[in-house]
Amino acid sequence: MNEIAALTPTSMQQKLNQWVEHYRQYTNEGACASYIPALKKADLNSLGIYMLSDDGIQLKSGDTEQSFTLQSISKVLSFIHACSSHGISHVLEYVDVEPTGDAFNSIFRLELSHPGRPFNPMINAGAITVASMLPGQSPDEKVDGLLCLIEKMVGRKPRINEEVFLSEWGTANRNRSLAYWLKETGFLLCPVEDAIEVYLRLCSIELCIADMAKIGLLLARDGIQPGTYRHVFSKEIASLTKTLMFTCGMYDYSGRFAAFVGIPAKSGVSGGIMAAIPSGAAMPSNNRPDSGPWGIGVYGPSIDKFGNSIAGVKLLKRLAKEWDFRLL
Amino acid sequence: MNEIAALTPTSMQQKLNQWVEHYRQYTNEGACASYIPALKKADLNSLGIYMLSDDGIQLKSGDTEQSFTLQSISKVLSFIHACSSHGISHVLEYVDVEPTGDAFNSIFRLELSHPGRPFNPMINAGAITVASMLPGQSPDEKVDGLLCLIEKMVGRKPRINEEVFLSEWGTANRNRSLAYWLKETGFLLCPVEDAIEVYLRLCSIELCIADMAKIGLLLARDGIQPGTYRHVFSKEIASLTKTLMFTCGMYDYSGRFAAFVGIPAKSGVSGGIMAAIPSGAAMPSNNRPDSGPWGIGVYGPSIDKFGNSIAGVKLLKRLAKEWDFRLL
Amino acid sequence: MNEIAALTPTSMQQKLNQWVEHYRQYTNEGACASYIPALKKADLNSLGIYMLSDDGIQLKSGDTEQSFTLQSISKVLSFIHACSSHGISHVLEYVDVEPTGDAFNSIFRLELSHPGRPFNPMINAGAITVASMLPGQSPDEKVDGLLCLIEKMVGRKPRINEEVFLSEWGTANRNRSLAYWLKETGFLLCPVEDAIEVYLRLCSIELCIADMAKIGLLLARDGIQPGTYRHVFSKEIASLTKTLMFTCGMYDYSGRFAAFVGIPAKSGVSGGIMAAIPSGAAMPSNNRPDSGPWGIGVYGPSIDKFGNSIAGVKLLKRLAKEWDFRLL
Amino acid sequence: MNEIAALTPTSMQQKLNQWVEHYRQYTNEGACASYIPALKKADLNSLGIYMLSDDGIQLKSGDTEQSFTLQSISKVLSFIHACSSHGISHVLEYVDVEPTGDAFNSIFRLELSHPGRPFNPMINAGAITVASMLPGQSPDEKVDGLLCLIEKMVGRKPRINEEVFLSEWGTANRNRSLAYWLKETGFLLCPVEDAIEVYLRLCSIELCIADMAKIGLLLARDGIQPGTYRHVFSKEIASLTKTLMFTCGMYDYSGRFAAFVGIPAKSGVSGGIMAAIPSGAAMPSNNRPDSGPWGIGVYGPSIDKFGNSIAGVKLLKRLAKEWDFRLL
Repeated sequence: MNEIAALTPTSMQQKLNQWVEHYRQYTNEGACASYIPALKKADLNSLGIYMLSDDGIQLKSGDTEQSFTLQSISKVLSFIHACSSHGISHVLEYVDVEPTGDAFNSIFRLELSHPGRPFNPMINAGAITVASMLPGQSPDEKVDGLLCLIEKMVGRKPRINEEVFLSEWGTANRNRSLAYWLKETGFLLCPVEDAIEVYLRLCSIELCIADMAKIGLLLARDGIQPGTYRHVFSKEIASLTKTLMFTCGMYDYSGRFAAFVGIPAKSGVSGGIMAAIPSGAAMPSNNRPDSGPWGIGVYGPSIDKFGNSIAGVKLLKRLAKEWDFRLL
Repeated sequence: MNEIAALTPTSMQQKLNQWVEHYRQYTNEGACASYIPALKKADLNSLGIYMLSDDGIQLKSGDTEQSFTLQSISKVLSFIHACSSHGISHVLEYVDVEPTGDAFNSIFRLELSHPGRPFNPMINAGAITVASMLPGQSPDEKVDGLLCLIEKMVGRKPRINEEVFLSEWGTANRNRSLAYWLKETGFLLCPVEDAIEVYLRLCSIELCIADMAKIGLLLARDGIQPGTYRHVFSKEIASLTKTLMFTCGMYDYSGRFAAFVGIPAKSGVSGGIMAAIPSGAAMPSNNRPDSGPWGIGVYGPSIDKFGNSIAGVKLLKRLAKEWDFRLL
Repeated sequence: MNEIAALTPTSMQQKLNQWVEHYRQYTNEGACASYIPALKKADLNSLGIYMLSDDGIQLKSGDTEQSFTLQSISKVLSFIHACSSHGISHVLEYVDVEPTGDAFNSIFRLELSHPGRPFNPMINAGAITVASMLPGQSPDEKVDGLLCLIEKMVGRKPRINEEVFLSEWGTANRNRSLAYWLKETGFLLCPVEDAIEVYLRLCSIELCIADMAKIGLLLARDGIQPGTYRHVFSKEIASLTKTLMFTCGMYDYSGRFAAFVGIPAKSGVSGGIMAAIPSGAAMPSNNRPDSGPWGIGVYGPSIDKFGNSIAGVKLLKRLAKEWDFRLL
Repeated sequence: MNEIAALTPTSMQQKLNQWVEHYRQYTNEGACASYIPALKKADLNSLGIYMLSDDGIQLKSGDTEQSFTLQSISKVLSFIHACSSHGISHVLEYVDVEPTGDAFNSIFRLELSHPGRPFNPMINAGAITVASMLPGQSPDEKVDGLLCLIEKMVGRKPRINEEVFLSEWGTANRNRSLAYWLKETGFLLCPVEDAIEVYLRLCSIELCIADMAKIGLLLARDGIQPGTYRHVFSKEIASLTKTLMFTCGMYDYSGRFAAFVGIPAKSGVSGGIMAAIPSGAAMPSNNRPDSGPWGIGVYGPSIDKFGNSIAGVKLLKRLAKEWDFRLL
């Protein structure tokens, strides 16, 4: 506790630098995602972190400039957008908020449970349903709506990595299988190919960890933009989204991440992680820079068997423990 | 926010009284648990709440004197005891900490996943494994160890409701089915009948909502006893336990409870709920009585289709929202 | 036994007439398939049977002229064609011959078993795999090859009911879900949309019960054409196909059909049934017309909850029992 | 065909001798059942066959004297006894006759299907249900009833191998798990421990292959005893039982056994196989000794991954093919 009390931005930055170098070695124990050909090209040993506090403190360390595709991190953004557009209760008619013990791309529960509503929007089935609900008639309109939301969040309209999109488009058999099943059971609200196109384009949006940190901070601030104090999305949506990140955000490792790291976060197989540290997560201590809220972006493309950045998870675990960021 | 700032114990008490009377009407929409004969006798319309803060504030309303059996709430206590006795890492070799989308008494995942480790200690399979790990050679020793832990928590050694125990003992086919399966796969560490006896005796421990509030507060205080400042259990165990309550504590409704109520809680089919509100769950505001930590006990034996107190859930949802107790 | 010994074609015909009229009343207890719009138009009360023996005896009764689409009966023909083209052992690398207890259009076992080979060619997943294996580069070539096989079997090239095909094409979400899953796991040997087109065109082939009887007789004769004594397909293929009809031919009712009717048969949701009575299925009795082999076609578009012609199953049960056609 | 026509008992015996010696070498590719300790002691290289025809012809070759425990072969006998005692329709209220694609000792379908009736009496769940239905108040009475039935079949009351019984009794966790589940869902008609005792005692009945052949012949003769011409059980029961052997008799290999061997048979993990060749299974040819019916017993304790005698299956496949014993 005494040690924490002495924290300053400078001492935090020093720690971050040490930790990034320390955990970078674990990148050799994972591998870049192989099922999306374009992701294989990433630099296995990259590791970077970016932290942004409510007070405007920026801490960054390691490989911070690399942009990467969102992959499953986009599930958070499309869920926020769908809820903002249609209201939470309407969205939840088509996707539940229950964690599952199943793989992110699993289908069997859609068959075994009735009426087959996807269990949550953080698994592929649920995210495809959400993609199909986005406002707009065409895939372009749906995608553009989300890019506009991101522009409000990070200050610029991101690009879509066309190579990654095409790479995923050509290998999306399992997602198409999910989508056709959802269509059959009434949980897909646009044509299947449109939903897949939207879903995969959102997965292919390129951002960097500074952007991740901004989005994380926005969630931590209950949707209120720093500076303008305007709501980009409502507090209810922010709460629900953070809860889903906490219970289902880290693939099949979600329960253990909640247990051992203890912060709301969402990962993608590209190696990105976006985390939101709510105010008061740490013991309140008025003048401490670590009392939150914080937004955090991590990038480390070497992923573990669960699909999470192998070094990124270790880095967040260390940080959450040492700086008392755990929710519980 | 202004309204919250004006909260005093008196105003909180008034609110509680209003809400208890308001939500009591919903008790008619549920029913007392029928699969355990002795539970059917409870008064359907009972509803009571007890809140205990770090500062010693006690708020209580409704039917506060009724004692009831813990049922699944005992899963929290046995998990704490097993972790205290063997260390977290040893316990987690036999039970994971992942939420599932399955029913609390489901078996199919034990067969379909390998090696069949129960997914978490809040479902029956996991709790039976935990019961089998409790220190002691005989069921009596195992149970007595837990009663001693509870004595440290609430100040007296509780009694076991023998009628309820016998009632459950005679109808425990499904739990025996789970236990024999676990025995076969190596996840039961004592004889099956011993494990079932221990498990069911723990389910039959009688406490009241004041006790629930004490235990909840102890969890909220990271295991540190008010007054003595001694650790009844470690901070790590407290964190892990609260996380499991948050992700898996409310049966098949756990994801929605996390999403819509947003506090760590564990329910039992007897209608009890034990909740822990960590410090800082609410926006920090120094002189406010609601800034936590709090422990909460609720009792309302009319349960919904998930097995949770139907009025209790509504009451906690109202309270968490109005007093900003949500974690996220 | 005495009664059976006295059977003549004339007496058999009389019985058939009685039974058809008797069982026709049960058509009101079922309904025409509703999930394929074009099938809803069939005459609910139709019922007809056509039997063809090795000795050239033809017996027919009821509505014998109606043509209908094969639906799942086509699974038998495409399996025969794939085996004839590639050899049994090659085909079985992609589809197994095990019955399942699952629905015909189920997907979960493809996920839960590894490597996800469809369990048999009589369920949709297996039949889609088989369709993808048919010789030919394009869907047209694949379909035409099968039409040519049917021409050899029934003496004319059948037409495809374009209305039914288009109706199924527009509602094939679940089949597409299966096909994309199979593509992902390596059990689809042509593009998904091609496989679906072939599969659905084969389902839409129109034949009549006289054709069913010819095909059934050909199977009963181990693939040897009456008259020419040439093998349309090999004895091994005939044996394997009849076995699959016996163990998996009648949707979820297959086990009970084998148990209570006891003959190899394949049904379609259009209400057709094709059955093959091997020689010697009945007690051998030299001069009896019922000593087999026989081919049987039945049509009754009112189907039960399993997807089988409700009156057709009852008619076959009666006939198999009275004339001792049971295999076992 | 010419070759078959020339078959005589002597030539058949010569063939059998050759084949037994040939297939004995495959015993090294399997292993004796290990999950029942007492079965591990069997002689891995044993292989014997015994054939008994309607005309009184006896053919035997290899290790014919060894007695062995029935294991799953007893499922056939208890099903016959239950049906004889209660009527087929009553028995089928508690156990269905559908094949499954699941492992013989699987439980998940009991949970996923409703109301959870076991799919067939050849899997453990179904056989435990059947054991619970046997006439008699106590396990002893239930078992004794079956021993009396066997006495009628083979001419002497068999003994129960107490060592094997005790060995299984001590390791029956998975069967107990199934039984408690069945109890919970109403598909067990006596106390769980009684059902398990009965089930395991029946598994531990010791017979030899001459007995298997007698029982197989009795099934092939529709339940009619040679000599007395009395029905030991009805033709309906014989038909149903043979059908179940054909569709579900050889564990997870049942579909392939039906497809590639093509005769009704039931195996046990002790390495025994009992088969029934109906009259007329082979092409009828009046003076041929192979025109059936036949009963066959095989013993070869080296089993494959499915639980079937590895050499026994190969021997039966050869014999069924060469002598045209296939049903279809």
